[in-house]
Amino acid sequence: MHALLSQLDSPRDLDGLSNRELNQLADEIRDVLCNLLATRTAHFASNLGVVELCIALHRTFDFRRDRLIWDTGHQIYPHKLVTGRYHEFSTIRTKGGLMGYPNPAESEYDLFMTGHAGCSVSTALGLKSGDDLMGEPERHSVAVIGDGAFPSGIVYEAMNNAAGLKAKLLVILNDNEMSICPRVGGLADYLDRLRANRFYTGLKTELVNVLNKVPVFGDPTERFLAQLKEALKAGLHGGMLFEELGFHYVGPIDGHNIPILRKYLEMVKEMQGPVLLHVVTQKGYGFKPAAEDPVFFHTPPMFRQEGDKVVPLDKGGGKAYTNIARDAIHDAMKRNPRVTVMTAAMCQGNKLEPIRADFPDRFFDVGICESHAVAFAGGQAKAGMRPIVAIYSTFLQRSYDQIFQEAALQNLPVTFMLDRGGLCGPDGPTHHGTYDIAYMRVFPNLVVMAPGDSHDLTEMLDFSLQHNGPCSIRYPKATAITIDGERTPLELGKAEVLQTGRDGAIVACGALLQECLAAAEMLHEEGLDVTVVNARFIKPLDTATILPLVRDLPFVVTVEEGCLMGGFGSAVLEAACDASLDSSRIRRLGVPDLFVEHGERHELLADLHLDAQGIAQTCRTLHAQATRTEAQHHV
Amino acid sequence: MHALLSQLDSPRDLDGLSNRELNQLADEIRDVLCNLLATRTAHFASNLGVVELCIALHRTFDFRRDRLIWDTGHQIYPHKLVTGRYHEFSTIRTKGGLMGYPNPAESEYDLFMTGHAGCSVSTALGLKSGDDLMGEPERHSVAVIGDGAFPSGIVYEAMNNAAGLKAKLLVILNDNEMSICPRVGGLADYLDRLRANRFYTGLKTELVNVLNKVPVFGDPTERFLAQLKEALKAGLHGGMLFEELGFHYVGPIDGHNIPILRKYLEMVKEMQGPVLLHVVTQKGYGFKPAAEDPVFFHTPPMFRQEGDKVVPLDKGGGKAYTNIARDAIHDAMKRNPRVTVMTAAMCQGNKLEPIRADFPDRFFDVGICESHAVAFAGGQAKAGMRPIVAIYSTFLQRSYDQIFQEAALQNLPVTFMLDRGGLCGPDGPTHHGTYDIAYMRVFPNLVVMAPGDSHDLTEMLDFSLQHNGPCSIRYPKATAITIDGERTPLELGKAEVLQTGRDGAIVACGALLQECLAAAEMLHEEGLDVTVVNARFIKPLDTATILPLVRDLPFVVTVEEGCLMGGFGSAVLEAACDASLDSSRIRRLGVPDLFVEHGERHELLADLHLDAQGIAQTCRTLHAQATRTEAQHHV
Repeated sequence: MHALLSQLDSPRDLDGLSNRELNQLADEIRDVLCNLLATRTAHFASNLGVVELCIALHRTFDFRRDRLIWDTGHQIYPHKLVTGRYHEFSTIRTKGGLMGYPNPAESEYDLFMTGHAGCSVSTALGLKSGDDLMGEPERHSVAVIGDGAFPSGIVYEAMNNAAGLKAKLLVILNDNEMSICPRVGGLADYLDRLRANRFYTGLKTELVNVLNKVPVFGDPTERFLAQLKEALKAGLHGGMLFEELGFHYVGPIDGHNIPILRKYLEMVKEMQGPVLLHVVTQKGYGFKPAAEDPVFFHTPPMFRQEGDKVVPLDKGGGKAYTNIARDAIHDAMKRNPRVTVMTAAMCQGNKLEPIRADFPDRFFDVGICESHAVAFAGGQAKAGMRPIVAIYSTFLQRSYDQIFQEAALQNLPVTFMLDRGGLCGPDGPTHHGTYDIAYMRVFPNLVVMAPGDSHDLTEMLDFSLQHNGPCSIRYPKATAITIDGERTPLELGKAEVLQTGRDGAIVACGALLQECLAAAEMLHEEGLDVTVVNARFIKPLDTATILPLVRDLPFVVTVEEGCLMGGFGSAVLEAACDASLDSSRIRRLGVPDLFVEHGERHELLADLHLDAQGIAQTCRTLHAQATRTEAQHHV
Repeated sequence: MHALLSQLDSPRDLDGLSNRELNQLADEIRDVLCNLLATRTAHFASNLGVVELCIALHRTFDFRRDRLIWDTGHQIYPHKLVTGRYHEFSTIRTKGGLMGYPNPAESEYDLFMTGHAGCSVSTALGLKSGDDLMGEPERHSVAVIGDGAFPSGIVYEAMNNAAGLKAKLLVILNDNEMSICPRVGGLADYLDRLRANRFYTGLKTELVNVLNKVPVFGDPTERFLAQLKEALKAGLHGGMLFEELGFHYVGPIDGHNIPILRKYLEMVKEMQGPVLLHVVTQKGYGFKPAAEDPVFFHTPPMFRQEGDKVVPLDKGGGKAYTNIARDAIHDAMKRNPRVTVMTAAMCQGNKLEPIRADFPDRFFDVGICESHAVAFAGGQAKAGMRPIVAIYSTFLQRSYDQIFQEAALQNLPVTFMLDRGGLCGPDGPTHHGTYDIAYMRVFPNLVVMAPGDSHDLTEMLDFSLQHNGPCSIRYPKATAITIDGERTPLELGKAEVLQTGRDGAIVACGALLQECLAAAEMLHEEGLDVTVVNARFIKPLDTATILPLVRDLPFVVTVEEGCLMGGFGSAVLEAACDASLDSSRIRRLGVPDLFVEHGERHELLADLHLDAQGIAQTCRTLHAQATRTEAQHHV
């Protein structure tokens, strides 16, 4: 079993292997990947697609010295397997185990922890520039970037800079005709045209070389000949978009043929200046169901394989907040023809497919272009529409400046739906939505909300689509709950008091409300009665409800699934301070000042004392302190 | 004087004017612009460059219905003059007067307040998409974008989306061969090549039309002919980069010839799908000194005109923090060959020209590409260099996600130098550096600093270049001061106590320290002695120094030139809360939850009670309250 892979200590062990053996290695890697998928949700199709490319790269370059950045990092699995992590591989994406993304703490072969798309060209260029300045210009620098990440603005910024610097940089465009969703935009059409060319054979280069030798004469003959020459080069060469920017374009070549890959990697390794090597791969290659449905197999749920058939292993569980949000958007679009929705290639992650099907004219997948998505929404809002920007909390960080300028400053009615607001689980620190409460609430004009349950989420979207200004709604990647009983209707800047008690208060910001209620239940059984508030609004904050608790009760605990610095708890402290209240009996629970590792959400919440047990324990401690203090006062 | 301009109530008054009259109007506009510059610092060369383009646009389109976005908005002056603001024009960039950028509050012709570069294509596309969905597809949408803004990643994201949507959108590339600094990068080289073509005459289109009629046969003849046809089109056509992306490219045309501009605007107005019209202009056109030195004349200091000569009117004043920062960077680069510096086309604004001259290999102007700048710096840092990213506070908002992923998460030693950290004066809300304290301090691993004076600034840079992780240093656009007397050496996480008093404390975060000391002086003369602390570090916060003040003194005032939400004052509240201290006697002074208008910095600070008077007044009020409370206790 895995005869070659299990013996591989380092990629340098590839040096002695023949192409036949390298192909066997590819088969072994695919076997490992397919077996893994029976045990857990993991990135799959993209990893199957880069097996040969990964092997050829490690065979051609020496990444102990040369530089390799995988963009986005979820295609890192074969790389992990050939860089000595085969024996730990079964731990991937579990708490304490290997990360599902590159991790410099795991291996010297992982240079950057990359979970957000598009930065590889910038960092690879920075590495090249740094190596040159450190006196080591012989170190090669390689970025592997998928066609999904390719339209990201930062890629264009980096290519522009690389061309200007005439840097010796290899950018490998891993073209699998897919983003996480089917790709979109002018660039996608262009890549489709390039792919339609026959695979590159080197012949075209020779022709161009001949044409380059055509002598040019004085104007106007010179002008005409030069134009004709350039024209012929363009037509014969392909990839003019990249050539015009200042890159050498080579390709397309077959990304599943190891000898071909090695040949062209050796060739481009020697070329001067920035090179774009266009490699055509197939997402899910080598596993028929995945190749046929790469969207489903991007991060499929657990399944068992029966021949070529796939049998899903149901984990059970209810409807997620993502589904509630989708349904609410869907309903709003049915009712109101002015509502549109934007996604940045997260159609699947945000489960928006039914909306794409039912409202193709009002559904906008802009590709992995979060900055544009927000400014584009600003334009639509200015024209009278009610755009919804549905982007994960961390990915929306790309739009910070557009949220500032194109939404908040213009006070335009753009609705931000931030999925993955909170700890997102096995994806780890690049994907945990930790900062959005802090980054959203600083902007004037924004209304910032976090639903306590699925009922709130639906109401908040409806509120937002009526409100005359920008709003944001954040919710976690979690199974949705609905709080029982009679509910207070949603009103701007109003919190909801779910139960009252005189021993203290828990103010919940967002979906951890469920844990807060459970904590209150535990405390009640111990004889402690606490008030539980569903804050709903981070901004404007309901000071009329919250400040009396600070003033009158023995303690107040704020609970949020986000960073403590500048978060919801800080908003409460600010309000208390502005009202000259003593806030020494407030405790803020949230994500402390560190990057939280990967793991199941419930595990991470427990570690951070953000589950019912942890919240209850904080309350007990505060109650004990308050009792002690009061006793002292009475002495 | 200004016979035409002074009579212009609306751009529709242009409808009856001949080309000769339109040229006279252009002369009048230039006269207004030149006169203005004798009275104040304002954007100049770029506005001189777009006079004819602006007139031709308003003559061809009707922007009561059609949509026009100027990118960046500092080229808005001619537009303001032809849209009915001639009589108020002398108030521009003064408090209460016209804004130096588009302002929807001033005019229905200003759609977005645009101070950050590159968003015009996104918002214009959003407007077009919104108008279409609103049932008004006949409304045209036009973005005018300079070649300086053009390399911004969001432009590429927007063009990609526009092409994918096949939207009827006109993007006018205002190519003046300049960013605010000389332009850089592969795209700049490309535009230089396009400019080298003769001005567009329409002939090429006709040739292409003929070629389009060449019949194509079965393979392989078809293939060859098709390739040849495309090749010839490419060579004859120019602008293949844009054509490949899915835009029609037209140009280059002469941007100072009103009849030509009108002819081509009429032509492209009728074209379907996205069009890029390449207009060649000259920054400073019509005023010789500005045309010859457009960098100096981007925002020149006040001057008087004597014929073609320019006599600067010296405002006096000392060295700015910008200069102190530049000198500190320069010194560090002399001492340490690993230090590099990145700018995003702000070489002039950050006064980095001497560094570019002395260390061309370690100076990187990446163009207006802030996202890339930070990721690029991350790569250099990983390779062992010590990159300094010198970007204004608000512009660095474009890099929020890269600060998170490429610097903080990887814990790489990138130094951020944030100029314009605070109220930057006449540029107004898009340029006020209000949010950086809040956005920087949320990230783990970052050390966040604000110098109290020029001495601190230099020490902080030196500290940062020794520190093994990311650091940020923010300072305002202001004349630097140096606090007299013996100073405490800079130490990580340590504040500096400048004077002690028992009546209260002022904790200054950053360069408002000067105002705090002046306030303390005023109070001293009134018999009130306050402690004054120079916080230096926002993170890690010096709780050992600050918390005892909160515990022991009658009041503590925190002072910062940044947003109150999540800012420095909130960091103090968080620390007090974590230490179970009563923080009800803390007052936080800073920028409240609104967008601050334009005006001189000292005027704005006074309005916000952030000058010495305001700070002293807050202290007096708190002192009176504390005295009253104490008196009550003693009753």
